[in-house]
Amino acid sequence: MPVEKVSFSEKLAHFQQQWSPKIIAQMNDVHFKLAKIEGKFVWHSHPETDEVFIVLQGSFEMQLRDRALHLKEGEMCVIPKGVEHRPVAAEECAVLLVEPAGTVNTGDAGGDLTSAHDEWV
Amino acid sequence: MPVEKVSFSEKLAHFQQQWSPKIIAQMNDVHFKLAKIEGKFVWHSHPETDEVFIVLQGSFEMQLRDRALHLKEGEMCVIPKGVEHRPVAAEECAVLLVEPAGTVNTGDAGGDLTSAHDEWV
Repeated sequence: MPVEKVSFSEKLAHFQQQWSPKIIAQMNDVHFKLAKIEGKFVWHSHPETDEVFIVLQGSFEMQLRDRALHLKEGEMCVIPKGVEHRPVAAEECAVLLVEPAGTVNTGDAGGDLTSAHDEWV
Repeated sequence: MPVEKVSFSEKLAHFQQQWSPKIIAQMNDVHFKLAKIEGKFVWHSHPETDEVFIVLQGSFEMQLRDRALHLKEGEMCVIPKGVEHRPVAAEECAVLLVEPAGTVNTGDAGGDLTSAHDEWV
């Protein structure tokens, strides 16, 4: 596969569905995924892996059981494996997720918001 | 270690040295590093790993042996393992590197621009 550049804004224009991460790049066994988030997600954790959130547009609150991080464009956080978290966005926010291929968005919680398999966009 | 947010602009203000990646976060065995680049780097490749470049500020040219990618803020590329590349920036550019911990900036090339060991900032 030839080396190509990837534009976040261009890829974000290709989908509307919220809470449904789309893969845009792969580095070794790690996927880079774009997600549009708005409202409250489900509390969950990933027992097997850390997970990175990078804010590209807007802002959101990463709720932890003991406090919350307010993240805006140009900020990121690492959720360590096993740590319960819930992203909440008052308005639509675009985030870049970095996590091992195969990581399920709802982790150990499951439920209606689970993306059965992530698609490339 | 408590979960904290990381601000790219705040971390970038903590160092001036160019071509000297600084670690700002770790996800499993993957490091997220900030680098300030200006001028021409050395041609090199990483025989063991892919490498991701995300432009945070400014723009640069990722030279490949057969062509070049012009990357600006909000764009990224994945350099597959073993592919020769050389970043060139006409003016200072801030990039976020994502690669396995221990990846050496000059790969198989070595030389004066090699960062012996990356530091956290």
